[in-house]
Amino acid sequence: MALAHKGLDIDAIPVCFSDIRTIEGGRHSTVPVLVDGDRVVADSFDIALYLDEGYPDRPSLFKGEGGQAMARFIEGWANLVLNLQISRMIVKDVHDILEERDKPYFRETREKRFGTVLEAVQVDRETRRELLRESLAPLRRTLHMQPFIGGEGPLFADYIVFGTLQWARVTSPFAVLADDDPVKDWFTRCLALHDGIGAMQAAA
Amino acid sequence: MALAHKGLDIDAIPVCFSDIRTIEGGRHSTVPVLVDGDRVVADSFDIALYLDEGYPDRPSLFKGEGGQAMARFIEGWANLVLNLQISRMIVKDVHDILEERDKPYFRETREKRFGTVLEAVQVDRETRRELLRESLAPLRRTLHMQPFIGGEGPLFADYIVFGTLQWARVTSPFAVLADDDPVKDWFTRCLALHDGIGAMQAAA
Repeated sequence: MALAHKGLDIDAIPVCFSDIRTIEGGRHSTVPVLVDGDRVVADSFDIALYLDEGYPDRPSLFKGEGGQAMARFIEGWANLVLNLQISRMIVKDVHDILEERDKPYFRETREKRFGTVLEAVQVDRETRRELLRESLAPLRRTLHMQPFIGGEGPLFADYIVFGTLQWARVTSPFAVLADDDPVKDWFTRCLALHDGIGAMQAAA
Repeated sequence: MALAHKGLDIDAIPVCFSDIRTIEGGRHSTVPVLVDGDRVVADSFDIALYLDEGYPDRPSLFKGEGGQAMARFIEGWANLVLNLQISRMIVKDVHDILEERDKPYFRETREKRFGTVLEAVQVDRETRRELLRESLAPLRRTLHMQPFIGGEGPLFADYIVFGTLQWARVTSPFAVLADDDPVKDWFTRCLALHDGIGAMQAAA
């Protein structure tokens, strides 16, 4: 989404968990990793910073110093509140669509994280959906004031939160957002951005 | 804090709940209300927007369009997460320091909001402090990256969150922040800003 926002053409190369260590000499343990000529940049936020600095003539992902600083808060909220809650609703579904060779690694690390077997983590997800709905209150309030977190149009902060919800959409058939939630309307708007590249990813 | 950030001199007029309807012809039901010449602006966020637009030569409260948009998210988070949680920890203390004529109004509206008598609301506040600590995770993560929510220096978003915690500091002797919380360090930095106008308000 960030690359499309900047209008940059890319070759996207999906990798399995097991193959992350084969990227660019094995220096990275997580994705995404951006290779731009001889520059290699890892971490979504650092990539966004790199793109805005390196391509200042393209639409900004932060729209100013304040937007860049506050996108860090949105990132923290998305990772420590949303991602954590959504993980607990879909982790077994994520496991099930992985390639076979990724499954043992994923199961071991996630069971350690949640302190129980994957099968047990997402059993109470109907209840957890209500908690997520409550946690989305600040976003809902924001979207009551403006169409995007970034204001009149989307910025990187929108893509951070969108990414978390898109991850749920493409890995699990469980609907984490209620149909009558204004956050769902915003998510649908995000799916349509940049010629619908979000919507093109098939839902699980 | 926003007015000090802009370097504007003001006369601050404290009002009791009972007297809010006497301000500027009784058109406002909440404070703050800013009177600037013949302009009257209510609501903290609208005041900040007014100041940044009306005094563009002074330091910005938002640092760009993105910062302005995302400050709405911080506002939502401060109001719907922090304020709600902190209210439940201090509402009886707030009541007790009000002027006598404000107490019946305050008790009635807050007991309706919490669905129980004020005396019952804050009894489990030791437990609630742990929940608040968890809720502060996105702010803690942000402050791990930079000294203020606004980045290298404070912006209006910092003052929004500071205001909520300062409200607790001046109305209740109960410490809502743990001493070893990095959020406490940031709060202490905020107290010292603008010649220490925050610290000048006596703690309860």
